[in-house]
Amino acid sequence: MKAERPVSFTMKQTVHFLKKHDNFCILTHSSPDGDTLGSAAALAYGLRSIGKHCFVRCGDEIPAKFSYFMREDLLTPMPYETVVAVDVADERLLGSLMVGFAGKVDLCIDHHVSNTGYAEKLYLDAGAAATCECIFELLGAAHIPLNDTIAAALYTGISTDTGCFKYSNVTARTHRIAAELYGYDIHAADICKAMFDTKSKGRLELERMVLDSARFYFDEKCMVLTVTTDMLEKTGCCENDLEGVAVLSRCVEGVIAGVSLKQKDENTFRVSLRTYDPLDASAICRRLGGGGHRAAAGCTLTGSVGDVTAQVLEAIGEALEESHAGTSAHQ
Amino acid sequence: MKAERPVSFTMKQTVHFLKKHDNFCILTHSSPDGDTLGSAAALAYGLRSIGKHCFVRCGDEIPAKFSYFMREDLLTPMPYETVVAVDVADERLLGSLMVGFAGKVDLCIDHHVSNTGYAEKLYLDAGAAATCECIFELLGAAHIPLNDTIAAALYTGISTDTGCFKYSNVTARTHRIAAELYGYDIHAADICKAMFDTKSKGRLELERMVLDSARFYFDEKCMVLTVTTDMLEKTGCCENDLEGVAVLSRCVEGVIAGVSLKQKDENTFRVSLRTYDPLDASAICRRLGGGGHRAAAGCTLTGSVGDVTAQVLEAIGEALEESHAGTSAHQ
Repeated sequence: MKAERPVSFTMKQTVHFLKKHDNFCILTHSSPDGDTLGSAAALAYGLRSIGKHCFVRCGDEIPAKFSYFMREDLLTPMPYETVVAVDVADERLLGSLMVGFAGKVDLCIDHHVSNTGYAEKLYLDAGAAATCECIFELLGAAHIPLNDTIAAALYTGISTDTGCFKYSNVTARTHRIAAELYGYDIHAADICKAMFDTKSKGRLELERMVLDSARFYFDEKCMVLTVTTDMLEKTGCCENDLEGVAVLSRCVEGVIAGVSLKQKDENTFRVSLRTYDPLDASAICRRLGGGGHRAAAGCTLTGSVGDVTAQVLEAIGEALEESHAGTSAHQ
Repeated sequence: MKAERPVSFTMKQTVHFLKKHDNFCILTHSSPDGDTLGSAAALAYGLRSIGKHCFVRCGDEIPAKFSYFMREDLLTPMPYETVVAVDVADERLLGSLMVGFAGKVDLCIDHHVSNTGYAEKLYLDAGAAATCECIFELLGAAHIPLNDTIAAALYTGISTDTGCFKYSNVTARTHRIAAELYGYDIHAADICKAMFDTKSKGRLELERMVLDSARFYFDEKCMVLTVTTDMLEKTGCCENDLEGVAVLSRCVEGVIAGVSLKQKDENTFRVSLRTYDPLDASAICRRLGGGGHRAAAGCTLTGSVGDVTAQVLEAIGEALEESHAGTSAHQ
């Protein structure tokens, strides 16, 4: 039956599905971010408000900074019959939830163009800047009113997935939705402070170390930053402190490929790639067994830091060459 | 006649004034930012589109990064009869344009609640996140259509004055206007990259030095960063590279008063203060002879770095004490 998956759902079909079913288990992706958590919480509160039963599951621990919308009661397990995944582009991103949920997702709601189609039904809006945009519209189409907590959850997903309205995935719709969310008591500036402008002292120290690791390639079009497990130990930082390091890699003038290598163990590195036109991060990471968006993608590679850097640079080099070829062909 | 100033203008009166007059000289504040320049350019292009003559003057050099909307032809002097200042809260902020324009501003369009009322007529909308919000609405009320360049200029002002929609001055209106501006070909992601995510290598180096200078006070509620002329020399950075350093001062967990001291010469420091509730940056800086907004304000102090730090800490200490007093009185 695998070959028939997924059935592409329209917004109307998705709303119908949500209204027809009950006892939802809503899954987020592992290493949860604002969009997957905001989507899950907003959907759960919305469904509860029309009398449905549901709870949220995440394969990893949920960072405390999301507790203003991701309340404990959302996470209390209960018997379920309908499995919905939100913002999960690939089944493998369920992480530890793969055990128990692989092949069992009834509906996936997502905005990643790279969605692998693992769920039985898929509501995919690749034009949405965040899955929270989809959830906002689905709740509207279902005539489920928002409240302050739902609005705060949706705002969190939209703002975090767009770098606070900075990235190229933002559209007029993104801002129109934000304007509507401001109609609720969402404390947006506090959310932004918590999401974007709050660093521990250890995190500041880590940033300095990471910037010290900066190496430039391809006429300074490419910058590579490295975060070793050793740096994390020295600064007392953890995995969650690494958010935003990938962003640092694309802030230097002239850099169109910003790479950050995060050491997971002795011989494994998580690679995050941020690109600007004409490079396509998603295409480059697909060559390395990963995926993502055009401006932000990732993959996991094994080897020493030197090996891994070489693999990434080779893929970027090829993409740069192709883009040059493409450009000159048009001239 | 000073005492009668200013005449507070409604939107309708302001539109009438702009339509009735011609040959405008539009003034920005010194150390020009995205909002004063975006306002000036959008107003100038808008007025030109209805057959008016105008040009823009700024007391300081205009950073090259604004050239996508601040075109050379806007800056070509011509005989003028009507002087309009945009985003200029205090006449002294005209800088070198004080010579020639002090006491001669016919109309000021502004969003600073601290506007000193130096102009003959004042259109003040203190609820606007940026003066560009006011210009957007004035152009709309005047039935002057936008174009791509005007929209890009307005987007620049709105995004830069709100830290890209992060600060507490943002309202639903801000996002509604942004959504409308996205209807034009504004290349918002490129603007954001240029305004927020582009640093020279020297600037990265400067950031590390500045972070090294970090000192904490009042149970780590206050962080002070110092930028000396020496640091600028060593990294090859200039005044314009300092934008954003003030923002660094308020990103550390628990810090509600972020101070940055920028050395202007041997014994002069420009103080930038960023605060979170319950502190009021504007009130603190007024004690020190400066002013600004509730969350972001500044002043200029003389003395050694030690003297200046002591003066700032004293004012912050008093404000902290008062805020504690205020809090306990309510409990």
